[in-house]
Amino acid sequence: MKPVTIALDAMSGDRGAGVVVTAALDAVRENEALSLILVGVRSELEALLSGEHSRIRIVEAADVVQMNERPSHALRHKKNSSMAIALGLVRDGEAQGCVSAGNTGALMAFGRSVIRMHPGIERPAICKLIPSLRGRCHVLDLGANVDASAENLYQFALMGSLMASAISGQSEPRVALLNVGEEEIKGNEQVRLASHLLAQCDTVNYIGYVEGSDLFRDVADVVVCDGFVGNIALKTGEGVAGLLIDLIEQAFSRGLYGRFVGFLARPIIGRLLRLMDPARHNGASLLGLQGVVIKSHGNANERAMLAAIRQAVREVDMEVPRRINERLDDLLI
Amino acid sequence: MKPVTIALDAMSGDRGAGVVVTAALDAVRENEALSLILVGVRSELEALLSGEHSRIRIVEAADVVQMNERPSHALRHKKNSSMAIALGLVRDGEAQGCVSAGNTGALMAFGRSVIRMHPGIERPAICKLIPSLRGRCHVLDLGANVDASAENLYQFALMGSLMASAISGQSEPRVALLNVGEEEIKGNEQVRLASHLLAQCDTVNYIGYVEGSDLFRDVADVVVCDGFVGNIALKTGEGVAGLLIDLIEQAFSRGLYGRFVGFLARPIIGRLLRLMDPARHNGASLLGLQGVVIKSHGNANERAMLAAIRQAVREVDMEVPRRINERLDDLLI
Repeated sequence: MKPVTIALDAMSGDRGAGVVVTAALDAVRENEALSLILVGVRSELEALLSGEHSRIRIVEAADVVQMNERPSHALRHKKNSSMAIALGLVRDGEAQGCVSAGNTGALMAFGRSVIRMHPGIERPAICKLIPSLRGRCHVLDLGANVDASAENLYQFALMGSLMASAISGQSEPRVALLNVGEEEIKGNEQVRLASHLLAQCDTVNYIGYVEGSDLFRDVADVVVCDGFVGNIALKTGEGVAGLLIDLIEQAFSRGLYGRFVGFLARPIIGRLLRLMDPARHNGASLLGLQGVVIKSHGNANERAMLAAIRQAVREVDMEVPRRINERLDDLLI
Repeated sequence: MKPVTIALDAMSGDRGAGVVVTAALDAVRENEALSLILVGVRSELEALLSGEHSRIRIVEAADVVQMNERPSHALRHKKNSSMAIALGLVRDGEAQGCVSAGNTGALMAFGRSVIRMHPGIERPAICKLIPSLRGRCHVLDLGANVDASAENLYQFALMGSLMASAISGQSEPRVALLNVGEEEIKGNEQVRLASHLLAQCDTVNYIGYVEGSDLFRDVADVVVCDGFVGNIALKTGEGVAGLLIDLIEQAFSRGLYGRFVGFLARPIIGRLLRLMDPARHNGASLLGLQGVVIKSHGNANERAMLAAIRQAVREVDMEVPRRINERLDDLLI
């Protein structure tokens, strides 16, 4: 494995730097090719690290972007934040990728201003690999943009298709638009126009519209929507999963018989709960930038943060930004 | 219980008239105050009924609206469809409500043209009661409109609030807007403007923004969004539930131990599966019309169709359209 360096914004998550430091220690332990740069308040990070680590170093950042801060405010006043400095390390080649659990809007805004975008891409998009019964599906945009034009959706589809090729090695990933029905006549104007653009594009394997329920049915490898829709769909899905897991746990702890069967079922249920564990699926990619930027959930725990670091390493290994950049030229209209 | 008559569009669903006739027979059996009018091809319906039923009669309709037919086409050419005639029976007072498993867009279009709308409401919305861990939540719009202005969202919020009061007896249901975050600055323009309108409205208990995951957490009694977002959120949630149920069934049928525990767990899992069964939750309300119109899922089975009929009866019993109409006057701006 090639050596990889990832910068971690250690200060921006809801749970503080302790979670990031623990995940960092776990990450370098499991991957000998990995070096990490913790970006944040040196004294705090040193205390948390408690000792020297050959593959973890600290870069000082005095400021932090707040979770509810306006991105425009952060962009003007938080140039010395852990977030901005971590992105700067990617721009300067000191790290090949970075991970932040901070304010999504600010990460987007800093990402665009610090790291170059792919030429021809108007806006970055947040992309995540979601699990299904068979296979998995890349979904974007999950909240980088609260609306999207047909051209934006078209560009998201191109990036998603190239991302799926790079990550999973599929030569012709199936690309679909998320819509309220499968028929030609369904949907709003942007979606219908984007469908028209994609149908004319030879190099994308566009299969048409899919519905929300298709996300988990291995119908498409890449599903494209605007960030408002994608964010709400993702969180609704997480909500249903959480509800069901609560119901299962309740069912197996009620009454003598329920508790008895629950005890016997523990290995089976345990496997299922681990599979559904949101921490395992943490880490979304900011596509559109010429560098690997991974957005972690704001309240990620240690395991979730570790999953996000692994995702960053994977994208660096697969050279995702380079592979997207190379092929976009041929595809953009 | 007061006598209730419901008209059933017997021809428009994916599964044909047999499903509707079976559900109709079950419905009149369980509810002695209920009379039903089956609207469709008399010869076919008579064959399916196989005999006289004192509380089920047939009204002839020669035509059917196709599932993928454009609403504008249906409106012009399908005045003699089972859907249009069923709605006409509500308009004429022969039935107090109707149920259709047909083309949603056409049901909307015919609904607006056949039955009067509440004065001041620009567009109908599809509203459904979704289950959560504690309590339940009315969500609208689930697909009547692929986009919505701030004023539309405001009107949906009013109707949803009045609906929740009428159905569940809550005096001040908590009303929220679905958004990509809870902070003031989040969301697109329509949602932020609708929030502003609702914050100024004394008679609605507006609690602000909620996210997709909040739908199942008893945070709000009424959640408002545009139909594109709502449809995709609902179907994504159904997709996750379906995936999880498949995973549970798989887990308990794998290996000797899995099958053994699965056998013991059958009563517990069975209760859970019944609770999550989409058929139990079938039947969405078309709000905005001065009559009860229930949209059933297109491929509803007998039990699902029965649930939709029950929903129609409930809304007639609770006089939902009258109660919405009465109070809208004070609330509309």
